[in-house]
Amino acid sequence: MRTFHATNPATGAPLPDAWPVATDADVDRACAAAARAFAPYAASDGATRSAFLHRIADALEADREAIVSVAGAESGLPEGRLTGELGRTTGQLRMFAELVADDDWRDVRVEVADPDRAPAPKPEVRSMKRALGPVVVFGASNFPLAFSTAGGDTASALAAGCPVIVKAHPGHPGTADRVARAVQAAARDTGLPDGVFTVLFDDGHEVGTALVRDPRVRAVGFTGSRAGGDALVRIAAERPVPIPVYAEMGSINPVFVLPGAAAARTEAIAEGLHGSFTLGVGQFCTNPGVAFVPSGAVGDAVRTALAARTAATPAGTMLNARVCEAYGQGVDALRAAGGREIASGAAADDAATPGVAHAFEVELDAIREAPALLHEVFGPTTLLVRYDDAAELAPFAASIEGQLTATVHGEADELGGHDALFSALADRVGRVIVNQWPTGVEVGPAMVHGGPYPATSDGRSTSVGTHAIDRFTRLVAYQNVPQELLPAPLRDA
Amino acid sequence: MRTFHATNPATGAPLPDAWPVATDADVDRACAAAARAFAPYAASDGATRSAFLHRIADALEADREAIVSVAGAESGLPEGRLTGELGRTTGQLRMFAELVADDDWRDVRVEVADPDRAPAPKPEVRSMKRALGPVVVFGASNFPLAFSTAGGDTASALAAGCPVIVKAHPGHPGTADRVARAVQAAARDTGLPDGVFTVLFDDGHEVGTALVRDPRVRAVGFTGSRAGGDALVRIAAERPVPIPVYAEMGSINPVFVLPGAAAARTEAIAEGLHGSFTLGVGQFCTNPGVAFVPSGAVGDAVRTALAARTAATPAGTMLNARVCEAYGQGVDALRAAGGREIASGAAADDAATPGVAHAFEVELDAIREAPALLHEVFGPTTLLVRYDDAAELAPFAASIEGQLTATVHGEADELGGHDALFSALADRVGRVIVNQWPTGVEVGPAMVHGGPYPATSDGRSTSVGTHAIDRFTRLVAYQNVPQELLPAPLRDA
Repeated sequence: MRTFHATNPATGAPLPDAWPVATDADVDRACAAAARAFAPYAASDGATRSAFLHRIADALEADREAIVSVAGAESGLPEGRLTGELGRTTGQLRMFAELVADDDWRDVRVEVADPDRAPAPKPEVRSMKRALGPVVVFGASNFPLAFSTAGGDTASALAAGCPVIVKAHPGHPGTADRVARAVQAAARDTGLPDGVFTVLFDDGHEVGTALVRDPRVRAVGFTGSRAGGDALVRIAAERPVPIPVYAEMGSINPVFVLPGAAAARTEAIAEGLHGSFTLGVGQFCTNPGVAFVPSGAVGDAVRTALAARTAATPAGTMLNARVCEAYGQGVDALRAAGGREIASGAAADDAATPGVAHAFEVELDAIREAPALLHEVFGPTTLLVRYDDAAELAPFAASIEGQLTATVHGEADELGGHDALFSALADRVGRVIVNQWPTGVEVGPAMVHGGPYPATSDGRSTSVGTHAIDRFTRLVAYQNVPQELLPAPLRDA
Repeated sequence: MRTFHATNPATGAPLPDAWPVATDADVDRACAAAARAFAPYAASDGATRSAFLHRIADALEADREAIVSVAGAESGLPEGRLTGELGRTTGQLRMFAELVADDDWRDVRVEVADPDRAPAPKPEVRSMKRALGPVVVFGASNFPLAFSTAGGDTASALAAGCPVIVKAHPGHPGTADRVARAVQAAARDTGLPDGVFTVLFDDGHEVGTALVRDPRVRAVGFTGSRAGGDALVRIAAERPVPIPVYAEMGSINPVFVLPGAAAARTEAIAEGLHGSFTLGVGQFCTNPGVAFVPSGAVGDAVRTALAARTAATPAGTMLNARVCEAYGQGVDALRAAGGREIASGAAADDAATPGVAHAFEVELDAIREAPALLHEVFGPTTLLVRYDDAAELAPFAASIEGQLTATVHGEADELGGHDALFSALADRVGRVIVNQWPTGVEVGPAMVHGGPYPATSDGRSTSVGTHAIDRFTRLVAYQNVPQELLPAPLRDA
């Protein structure tokens, strides 16, 4: 049995526990168990799945201290952040527990028969959303809890009635194991079969690839890099029976600072932008990687304020050596593409994977000539793009790649003149924000954490909020089926 | 300018009108016009789009006689069928017109801000479904009206706020042209830009390929063969920005006749199966291509009754020479795979593309050894599969490919014993039917005309019924956006 060790990113030292790389037999066993569990779990009543999700949340809370401790050692994320992330994780689980306590989410529709209709009798037809089948979820490096083992993808798939197989992120296997034990205990306490939830480990790509190729797997949830998401989409498309892949990938989350706002709220905007792009050492999907700021004195003042805050930013510990190295390459690429560095934060001398804040600047024209300036750099950096005329922003916004978010900062008297900008953004992003910041994604029924490719592989949906359950369902109709053979949600009350 | 002629399938003679093959410039112009029309059309109010759809239906009805006449000459379908299909087409348009008259279909969600929430203030978030962008719709050979130029895909895409570019089916360009004129007149009468609807012609694959590759196109609707649908999916996946393809492809729509029903309703089942598999010369996606019937005397009686009806079936005119030739090859393949012919209908001596009914028989074991027996044969043929024990049906059903429909015929006292069969079918098909027949798809809010691959390329959705509109939308959220900048459906009432 091959094993691997996680690394403490703060020290660069390997952690003591050895994690087993799943074998082909492990993958087969997990898929077989999930396939066996599917029919009874999909048919379980909402109260059962609701209780299961509540129990997972309870079990995570009961083990909070240990989970936060191991996640901290494996990810370098601070305790406060991880405690908050655990709360977000249990909040998501409970949100879905409430959602599926009744069957409203299934969109039950009943058409009554009319035997006398001419020219042909009208049949009775009933339909609802039904679980899709076993789902593979990939743990995300940057959210060891909320987008990993019992995170949003897992919670929404389990809520829908889909068994879940988690491929743990190699950066935090100990966290995955600890969380998985909570899920498995909750499954046992709810009387559910083991196959409802399995976790597998691997420090390479083989196990994930085998899972996505397995004919018993019906959908994939992923949060990570564009290269990783694209690869999974390709593998899924090449299957004899293709399956959907919901990959939430990269985004530069543009911020458009209008002239009035830049003048009226110079310090607040610099403070907000700095706070958002350095939050969590810049390791959020909704990190604002580019901010459009006016040229001239007003924009200069924003730049000066941002530079001062950036220079005063202490280095944080990044998630792992690979993320740290890629960040360094991304910063170098910004420089090579013509980004002028306006400030960089303090270097760290104690972390093995230091994330040093950087702020850059270019003129809008430079972006047109060097599109590489708009490539996502995962880490605490942002690029100020100076524009001469706010009327340039709308056509520019219409040309950008798909994004998770776009943010506009404007004063009340100037926003109204930017209909075209808002129209362009609504077509390019999953969430349009005014006078707030993109990091800190609210979890709730209205949230959309999605967006056109390459922000996600399937821009029709969202991986955060109650809508996320729909990704793991399909519609099924029943025509003239007797009451006792209908699934319970379709029977007459 | 290259042109082509349609053929009258009843005579094999070319029809007089010459149709222009679209050039690269035509494709570019159509996509540019659709892209220009998108933003204003997507933002148009529901009343406008509702009026547009009603006007299309009115215009089609006003031109009914001419449309039915040209469609009959091009498709060989009888007048009664085409008149019915036109009614279905206008019914679909009016169903969507009613659906989008208000914004309920958008699933508007509003979360109210809570500035005092701890640890972080809660932002206001609103979301809704929004049109995806320009959609390419491929005309279907077997439904020149209801699944073609102004058919279900077009109606649902236009209802959502997506401009549509139709690639007319080469079998019925004159029908496409006549219908397109009705749509274009309705667009003008509604004050909509030309780019909202365009039709292009081609007798090959180049125009369709170019349309699916065009970066301005955001989704594809298709009804046709598995080879055609798979090809479009592949082209769409290879784009720099992949797009969804909704391809409704083949299906054999299995029928399971339980022993009690076979005994109690021998004649009625033979009559119903015969009527369903020969309806429209067997050229329906929901055509029952395989029927599981008990072995022994009871099943023999069904076979005898079906054989008598099949032998007495007059040959019909098939849609075109290619369909007719493929049908002949499919029937030969059934024979080669071991299907015993139990009856064939009368040969035609006057049609150029005769569709002669055939019924075959095999034992259940033979299917396990020769899966080719379950390949779709598009035309008036069905295969009786004789089983010894009804308990064999559920495991067999669990192993079949994805299907649009599955039908169970059973008496009240025997259905209850087949939970496992129903559970298996619910996982493999889009619509489960009891004691009725799969052809004749009801159009309404509960209908699901979809199913796991290869029945469709995206088994989560449906191409018939009001759910179909969701295919051409994506979710967009607005956070803290002032009322006047919100899309109208998201504003406070």
